[in-house]
Amino acid sequence: MKGEVTTGEDKTMNLPSIFERYRGEVDSELRSIFVDYDLPLYEMMRYHLGWIDENGNHIEGASGKALRPTLCLLACEAAGGDFHKALPSAAAIELVHNFSLIHDDIQDNDRERRHRPTVWSIWGIPQAINAGDGMRSVAGLALLRLEDRGVPTKKRERAQRLLDESCLRMIEGQYLDVSYEGRFDIAVDDYLEMIDRKTAAIISGSLQIGAIIGTEDESFIGSIGEFGKNIGLAFQIKDDVIGIWGNQDKTGKPLAGDIQRKKKSLPVVYALQTANGTSREELLNIYKKSDITEQEVNKILQILDDVDTRTHAEQLAEEYRNRALAELEALKVSQWAKANLEEIAYFLVERDF
Amino acid sequence: MKGEVTTGEDKTMNLPSIFERYRGEVDSELRSIFVDYDLPLYEMMRYHLGWIDENGNHIEGASGKALRPTLCLLACEAAGGDFHKALPSAAAIELVHNFSLIHDDIQDNDRERRHRPTVWSIWGIPQAINAGDGMRSVAGLALLRLEDRGVPTKKRERAQRLLDESCLRMIEGQYLDVSYEGRFDIAVDDYLEMIDRKTAAIISGSLQIGAIIGTEDESFIGSIGEFGKNIGLAFQIKDDVIGIWGNQDKTGKPLAGDIQRKKKSLPVVYALQTANGTSREELLNIYKKSDITEQEVNKILQILDDVDTRTHAEQLAEEYRNRALAELEALKVSQWAKANLEEIAYFLVERDF
Repeated sequence: MKGEVTTGEDKTMNLPSIFERYRGEVDSELRSIFVDYDLPLYEMMRYHLGWIDENGNHIEGASGKALRPTLCLLACEAAGGDFHKALPSAAAIELVHNFSLIHDDIQDNDRERRHRPTVWSIWGIPQAINAGDGMRSVAGLALLRLEDRGVPTKKRERAQRLLDESCLRMIEGQYLDVSYEGRFDIAVDDYLEMIDRKTAAIISGSLQIGAIIGTEDESFIGSIGEFGKNIGLAFQIKDDVIGIWGNQDKTGKPLAGDIQRKKKSLPVVYALQTANGTSREELLNIYKKSDITEQEVNKILQILDDVDTRTHAEQLAEEYRNRALAELEALKVSQWAKANLEEIAYFLVERDF
Repeated sequence: MKGEVTTGEDKTMNLPSIFERYRGEVDSELRSIFVDYDLPLYEMMRYHLGWIDENGNHIEGASGKALRPTLCLLACEAAGGDFHKALPSAAAIELVHNFSLIHDDIQDNDRERRHRPTVWSIWGIPQAINAGDGMRSVAGLALLRLEDRGVPTKKRERAQRLLDESCLRMIEGQYLDVSYEGRFDIAVDDYLEMIDRKTAAIISGSLQIGAIIGTEDESFIGSIGEFGKNIGLAFQIKDDVIGIWGNQDKTGKPLAGDIQRKKKSLPVVYALQTANGTSREELLNIYKKSDITEQEVNKILQILDDVDTRTHAEQLAEEYRNRALAELEALKVSQWAKANLEEIAYFLVERDF
């Protein structure tokens, strides 16, 4: 399980208004990148991005919420820059994120994302690998468009390095996530190390890249990166909560899906660490089976409830959000930018999709 | 099927001596890139690169022939540059090539490469996807080391764009290759379009990147790129011949492996286009089965023989080699460089591994 869970029709319902500020231009930038690409390879990418259905017909309302591009552009503005200059990097980051989702769906054997069949479930694993690989290279080319926006060389090279580094960290996290699947000795610290790479690195990178384009102030870039790391951790922990207790209609994912797929998400890792002997034994036995029945899912939900894992996870998410907010306090930034960064930090922990 | 088929022990036996000129430094550059990477994710990459066995023990003699880095460095020298400056790009190209091999082995369901189990066959598909994805990002970071070698910004950015573009072309070719699997209407022209992307683009890119680092002469860069495209086509056609008639001991691949795997390699595409009614029907019927028996493989070899596909394919490879040599004629280049480029062009068509 990686990244965001979005609704179908009403996904923008509770999104902070700042998402609307950039949505149109991020979308235009992304679509313009694909203008000259006409092989069917790119149809798979357009499908994944929510622009067309599997027959190539235009559709609407199937895109993600574009969290990372929004953070990138807001960081640029918060740093005193013109967000238009950062659009190519915002698009590149969104493509890196989506490349990872295409491969993640193969790795997790997930047949649905955002209420739609996943790329591999339509075109098969070999072509879905190609779709992801291709999108990764398109992301690299998208970033080179920073030159057309007049971003100086030094900044472009830093953005390039940060994009590659955060992408690599994300893959390290993905590696750890998969490697935890067969293990039952994962502690909360191991989990945190994993999500720090899998989710927080690219979110932190998004903000840093935007800030680099907007300012020369290294302390600003460092602090906004720390803010990003902490909201990234909070975001993933909340995602884990939604992955178990989320509303199916809103998430587009099966009920208690992360349990059915036996993911080592935070609530389960926490329960394995804190549940008493019998409950722990029961949890282990069910997680070691190749398939889990509905009754067993309910049993696990009961055990998670007994040790109050949901409350614990939500408190931990709030703790990271508070650390993020503390970083903001030290940041020299306009009231407007601060209010929007805060609103996102609260939203990521309070959302139910 | 993608890329080179190498021998185990005696792989350097017939390699042109220019490969030896760069081998040590390419190897050092590659290894230095991995020095700080210690997660088990990178063990898979080191394994694939032939540096360690699956238990992490040091081994020797399992690396590829490093064709692309050799071409990159030779192009830099041929252009009048110092090849040491191009080492980071040579390493980056080798990593892009190897990322594609790791994913290619998953897509083709290949359990062996270079006489060794493939990454996915040891660590499973999800982790092999991560190993390839990770190597792709490591390649991007490797290229940024051009700065440490004093390569000017403009050249670095051109190298970056060329690396991303040729990588994307390669993936387009990989997409076409997979898409041809279920099709029986593939003509030789379709095949050529596919290998132009899958194989020739990155070989051409390797030479262009080296040349960019070595010179400002745009016509030189263009001509060496054309040379590369043509030897790339010749190389892949010869690879297809070896994939059917190659010596198992030398190639590390099963006898007539491309037929057993029902690949649309040139000899088969040519036979489908030229064999008479009955033979063509027979070929089609066998290729449409889910498994091919040894007897059926022999039947296909007979049909390929009847329309003289091997001779045809080898002639086509020679034709592209000759076009490459014609590009060389027009190139202002030292006798030393010319002789080495020619030797490589001949070797790629005459090799039996």
